[in-house]
Amino acid sequence: MEINADAGESFGRWSLGDDEALFRHIDAVNIACGFHGGDPTTMRRTVDLALEYDLSIGAHPGYQDLLGFGRRIIPMPHDQVVDLILYQVGALEAIVRSRGGVLRHIKPHGSLYGVIARDAELGEAVGRALAAVYPNAPVYLAPSVGADAMEAVGCRVVRENAVDLEFDDEAMNIIDPVPREKDPAIVAAQALRIAEGSVLSRTGNIVPMEIASMCVHGDRSNAPQIAAAVRAALTDAGVHVGPLHR
Amino acid sequence: MEINADAGESFGRWSLGDDEALFRHIDAVNIACGFHGGDPTTMRRTVDLALEYDLSIGAHPGYQDLLGFGRRIIPMPHDQVVDLILYQVGALEAIVRSRGGVLRHIKPHGSLYGVIARDAELGEAVGRALAAVYPNAPVYLAPSVGADAMEAVGCRVVRENAVDLEFDDEAMNIIDPVPREKDPAIVAAQALRIAEGSVLSRTGNIVPMEIASMCVHGDRSNAPQIAAAVRAALTDAGVHVGPLHR
Amino acid sequence: MEINADAGESFGRWSLGDDEALFRHIDAVNIACGFHGGDPTTMRRTVDLALEYDLSIGAHPGYQDLLGFGRRIIPMPHDQVVDLILYQVGALEAIVRSRGGVLRHIKPHGSLYGVIARDAELGEAVGRALAAVYPNAPVYLAPSVGADAMEAVGCRVVRENAVDLEFDDEAMNIIDPVPREKDPAIVAAQALRIAEGSVLSRTGNIVPMEIASMCVHGDRSNAPQIAAAVRAALTDAGVHVGPLHR
Amino acid sequence: MEINADAGESFGRWSLGDDEALFRHIDAVNIACGFHGGDPTTMRRTVDLALEYDLSIGAHPGYQDLLGFGRRIIPMPHDQVVDLILYQVGALEAIVRSRGGVLRHIKPHGSLYGVIARDAELGEAVGRALAAVYPNAPVYLAPSVGADAMEAVGCRVVRENAVDLEFDDEAMNIIDPVPREKDPAIVAAQALRIAEGSVLSRTGNIVPMEIASMCVHGDRSNAPQIAAAVRAALTDAGVHVGPLHR
Repeated sequence: MEINADAGESFGRWSLGDDEALFRHIDAVNIACGFHGGDPTTMRRTVDLALEYDLSIGAHPGYQDLLGFGRRIIPMPHDQVVDLILYQVGALEAIVRSRGGVLRHIKPHGSLYGVIARDAELGEAVGRALAAVYPNAPVYLAPSVGADAMEAVGCRVVRENAVDLEFDDEAMNIIDPVPREKDPAIVAAQALRIAEGSVLSRTGNIVPMEIASMCVHGDRSNAPQIAAAVRAALTDAGVHVGPLHR
Repeated sequence: MEINADAGESFGRWSLGDDEALFRHIDAVNIACGFHGGDPTTMRRTVDLALEYDLSIGAHPGYQDLLGFGRRIIPMPHDQVVDLILYQVGALEAIVRSRGGVLRHIKPHGSLYGVIARDAELGEAVGRALAAVYPNAPVYLAPSVGADAMEAVGCRVVRENAVDLEFDDEAMNIIDPVPREKDPAIVAAQALRIAEGSVLSRTGNIVPMEIASMCVHGDRSNAPQIAAAVRAALTDAGVHVGPLHR
Repeated sequence: MEINADAGESFGRWSLGDDEALFRHIDAVNIACGFHGGDPTTMRRTVDLALEYDLSIGAHPGYQDLLGFGRRIIPMPHDQVVDLILYQVGALEAIVRSRGGVLRHIKPHGSLYGVIARDAELGEAVGRALAAVYPNAPVYLAPSVGADAMEAVGCRVVRENAVDLEFDDEAMNIIDPVPREKDPAIVAAQALRIAEGSVLSRTGNIVPMEIASMCVHGDRSNAPQIAAAVRAALTDAGVHVGPLHR
Repeated sequence: MEINADAGESFGRWSLGDDEALFRHIDAVNIACGFHGGDPTTMRRTVDLALEYDLSIGAHPGYQDLLGFGRRIIPMPHDQVVDLILYQVGALEAIVRSRGGVLRHIKPHGSLYGVIARDAELGEAVGRALAAVYPNAPVYLAPSVGADAMEAVGCRVVRENAVDLEFDDEAMNIIDPVPREKDPAIVAAQALRIAEGSVLSRTGNIVPMEIASMCVHGDRSNAPQIAAAVRAALTDAGVHVGPLHR
């Protein structure tokens, strides 16, 4: 099992999340690419920090919506979604390469993540483009029709999901516009369930869900504590925790 | 001699320049990267059009200033200028690759062009970063301390300059916030002088200037006519006109 | 009957529409407020031009979406829509007052227009806020549940609609992301029908529709010709054409 | 003496400053207007909070530069600076009125503040526009040629200055891109000096400076503690502290 987290979501004068504290407890990082958060300089600094902590680096493209932090659905045709993603991934990859790193994966952010997961046709369009330009960087996405569609067109996909969100009975996570402090013990318990192939839904059901990477949201106020608790719980239970790609 | 032009400078609902008409008369195109003009979808469409006309494709990064169209100097530390450029070039390169093309060169836009040309230290910083990430894509820049500084740190540079702007007695071009219609015959005469190694300054002096590529501004209202006239004049005078990189 | 048009939709370096030509043929103008188009300087210049042509000046607030030109629905809670509108109307009103004019009306733009027209609860929220701050500036909106809801909370409403769009059988206009050239004679014929209280729908039905002002979209390529044709047709038919508010 | 502070400088998902804690210790608030910080909804919430604490409400317009937080000089012609200011002040005023408040003053933000203070011609242009549209809302500005120029064209001016910045020997404050924690006792000592008509400069000189309002920067990490210490020190020394306008 891998622990990934969203990071680099500050913007200019505004800080968000304590990336350095968080990076001590995770394996892979999804770095915001400037459209929902992040800016070129924040991206470079986050890449440097990720390299310092030897994390697997991924791009975290989102809708072009700073004000809504990528958590609003901006209606767009599929081909424009592909343009949006390529633009952001390319921007981050250039910065990663300039700092001596390698882009290891791509994970859509916020509402864009959910829109792709739910739409097979969009999954195909995005999957085709990313497979062509970044054959070595798999897409991280929840088990979904979108993920299946990506794979069907030759795009590598890693099934992942949030460990710190609530879930419905289809094992789809429920987006949280402003993630607040959460009890690390509760999240750690969910992590153990997920490591065993299922997840506790909001209605109290145990729903099957097979994933290889689990995500902590970097903008949750106690994200570092949650990541630490998840890591400790998994390790104590004998689950191997570490980066998928090297 | 190569003829290059800035293009892809539309934004969403707003069109600027007649790229298709212009592309019939040029060899290389500098495509806006979304910060001063252009957006991900406009970039993809412009790349497709450039491939259709078999043009040499370059990135045209500028200051992040849509309202000022990159023609205002935004004060920034050197390292942030490097971040800004890498971000935009990476974004365009991803789109170029996804359409089956190759990024051939990088040309700073507007005020960013002049700021780099005039500042050796900034030229070094930008040159070092671009040489590391894009060793095969030379930077297009006017003969200047900035261009020399780039070369000194191992960055390939092609000397170029605008053919459709006015020049001072140091052969530096004078930026024009809103390029208006210009007599193609006058520009063609300037092109011939430039092909022979000199340029007519605003004060009437003939000043030496050695360049390998000359630029027509795509947002000038009669840019296609100017490019056609320049091409015809050079060809008629026996100057070989064509792309530098292949 | 009044003829109104959207204008001031240029942005920085990018021009849209020929406002001066259009202003010769209309009575009232809806000036973009910087969120979907327009910028502070464009707004001031458009206000000056409107004063020169003695037009009734209105604010034309839209979604904060330059890239989508306000023609995409950005999901937002009702209270945030009210904030968005007040912000833009206030911005324009300050500029109008500084040039010696008076703000006469408010007309939502693009998708925001349709969202308000279709949602009674949102209409109430917007109507309450605008009635409180701008009691003398009625809202222009299509006959709709939103318009009725506004009136029910004490907001003055002028029923209006586009004359140059297509209509469905409920007399709701169908938004056109990029309005193209249209035959002025066809639009003029529609104008005559509208002046008599009905509209021809896309499916060929004559549907009742009572409005006091009809709109020409300023970003349609031949907007001035259309406005001129509509004005001439109405005048020739003996319909009084002129501004509603003075 | 009045204590004023900048506030409402959050943006969407990003928070900045603890406005509620700060508002307990100040008399007047300068609310960001969306160009350097703030957004329509943040503005409304900040206005509501200011009304709850019975503060004198002012507009705090800045350069249109979210990434630089208005602390970079964006080169613009004077008439465009006037447009920029009117736009933002109008936007805030509409929101203030909609919440039942009154706009009491206008204070330029960041680099815009300094640019106006140093340029008599710009001061005249801004002063003329603001005096015409907001005759009852004085401009807050440091003692300067810009302030004098504003007054000379009939604009009301309140001399103010930062209490928490360093000063040069001309009593001009030195802008601080990212204000960090500062010893409240040191700032309080400076406040006492200022109340007596002088200020301690960075080089150790006591320089005359007469102001009627002193500013605490809301984005300094311990802004509430500083405001509390300044207020206590002034009150203890028998200086009357309270809002200037009512």
